[in-house]
Amino acid sequence: MYSIQELQERIQKELAELSFNKQPIELYEPIKYSLSLGGKRIRPLLTLLACDLFGGDINKALKTSIGIEVFHNFTLLHDDIMDKAPLRRSKPTVHHKWNQDIAILSGDAMLIEAYRLVMQVDDDLLRKILEIFNDTAILVCEGQQWDMNYETNKQVSIQNYLEMISLKTAVLLAASLQIGALIAGADKNDAQLLYDYGKNLGIAFQLQDDILDVYGDKDKFGKQVGGDIISNKKTYLLLKAHQLAKGENLELLNTWINKIEFNPEEKVEAVASIFNNLNVKEEAKVEMQSFYKKAMMIFSKIDIPHERKTIIATFADSLINREI
Amino acid sequence: MYSIQELQERIQKELAELSFNKQPIELYEPIKYSLSLGGKRIRPLLTLLACDLFGGDINKALKTSIGIEVFHNFTLLHDDIMDKAPLRRSKPTVHHKWNQDIAILSGDAMLIEAYRLVMQVDDDLLRKILEIFNDTAILVCEGQQWDMNYETNKQVSIQNYLEMISLKTAVLLAASLQIGALIAGADKNDAQLLYDYGKNLGIAFQLQDDILDVYGDKDKFGKQVGGDIISNKKTYLLLKAHQLAKGENLELLNTWINKIEFNPEEKVEAVASIFNNLNVKEEAKVEMQSFYKKAMMIFSKIDIPHERKTIIATFADSLINREI
Repeated sequence: MYSIQELQERIQKELAELSFNKQPIELYEPIKYSLSLGGKRIRPLLTLLACDLFGGDINKALKTSIGIEVFHNFTLLHDDIMDKAPLRRSKPTVHHKWNQDIAILSGDAMLIEAYRLVMQVDDDLLRKILEIFNDTAILVCEGQQWDMNYETNKQVSIQNYLEMISLKTAVLLAASLQIGALIAGADKNDAQLLYDYGKNLGIAFQLQDDILDVYGDKDKFGKQVGGDIISNKKTYLLLKAHQLAKGENLELLNTWINKIEFNPEEKVEAVASIFNNLNVKEEAKVEMQSFYKKAMMIFSKIDIPHERKTIIATFADSLINREI
Repeated sequence: MYSIQELQERIQKELAELSFNKQPIELYEPIKYSLSLGGKRIRPLLTLLACDLFGGDINKALKTSIGIEVFHNFTLLHDDIMDKAPLRRSKPTVHHKWNQDIAILSGDAMLIEAYRLVMQVDDDLLRKILEIFNDTAILVCEGQQWDMNYETNKQVSIQNYLEMISLKTAVLLAASLQIGALIAGADKNDAQLLYDYGKNLGIAFQLQDDILDVYGDKDKFGKQVGGDIISNKKTYLLLKAHQLAKGENLELLNTWINKIEFNPEEKVEAVASIFNNLNVKEEAKVEMQSFYKKAMMIFSKIDIPHERKTIIATFADSLINREI
């Protein structure tokens, strides 16, 4: 079996070999740039790990795994336009570096390039894998739309939020695993278990993201700590705080949320302090652990020797217990 | 064989059966709306005509043909954002009726839905048809990028323009025909001939569009006559006028092009009058006829009884000699 590092190297090499040195450069340079911004490359890694788990040939999963990564970066590119985000991984976003029209169109081209890559599987798997990819891609769009809706919707429940992050984040992690398993020749049942595992893991992963956004070590985190608080993003923490807050805490929370002008650091400190009063970090951790445990329970049902499962399980653990 | 009207009815019926009554409505309503705006449905018609030409079962091409139409409408939706167009077929564009974020995201979802439909072909054709679709979709994006580049580029040649419209418009018409032929079981050579036919026909079609934009009967045309002149769009007519204009005509043309404030009707009349002085309409017609003749010459190479070819040839003729 391959180590995480070996697989990461294969992914980097494969990404580096993608050739977008084509005309018109205004279309292709933003694609190269987006893919050069880095990131953890979690999705292709999951595809290769799943393929390796079932004893498959990872070379047969490599192009498809890269296609999933290109798709993921396409969603980031378009989401950044919608979020009016100036930065992505400390670098200017495509619509800032070029312009919005170029960001829309090069994103479209990236989605098509993703299909080109995902398609590179054996004939007998082509339709099935494309169906999973289509279904997942549509769900990711739905998740993004719910996320936008919730920005202005005042009645967002924790259940709504969990369903939204399931669509926006978890299903793509789930599909990455499922596709890797199918390429390895796993049966449909095992591939579905891996999908369900990935979906629960993905929700736990996003909850950890929410926690880190407030409680991450700012030297390690790589982006502004408290960004979600500053923008009033309805994360698990904020929704839970709203559910639990009463009296003075509720009043204070609403005051900060409704403030138009404020010192960002002051707001982060004040809201985090309300979160602390209400123990929402612990609540979020409990929720996260519950999804993580459900994931592990599903994973245990896959009938594969324990020692083969260690790499993927260790990697999952590192995702959930990460500090960045 | 089917008549044009029979095929159009099948297309309308199939389009009407697409179900986008799903949540979140902010994602799916714009897709329904886009597809409800109408249009000539030329691309799916070409797919079905090509399928019928080779004696294929049009039921096997129907979903794919609709996928191509959904793709075409996706490009219109995103192009309208880039062009800041307020209207499409006399109705508000999606980014005006909803907002830009919704227009971006529902366009993305439409592209994925297009793949879902295009994929509905027999297994033995799946990869080939998706490859054609991917290649074509990327070329359409390239065409749109060149089109945007040419808005600000002062050195656009007629050759540049013809290549741009070939990408932006002609290749999708070409691929619509090729895909229909392949679904019917036509051999690769014949399908390629039909592609080349469609590409030349498509360029002629766009040149006719340029001519109609200036010289169309405003009661029949359905959009503002002279819109290209008002926006200084570098169409064949304007590029040719620039190539031919000298002395007073050139001075007058540049004056109108550089005017920031003007009466639109006055500008259209003045520039059209320069076009008339320079005979650019006739030049454009000659160019159009040359592509149309090339198309017909290629079409004649397809070894199919003459009587089977009549419907498609008559339809092509109606496209080129249309008044709207």
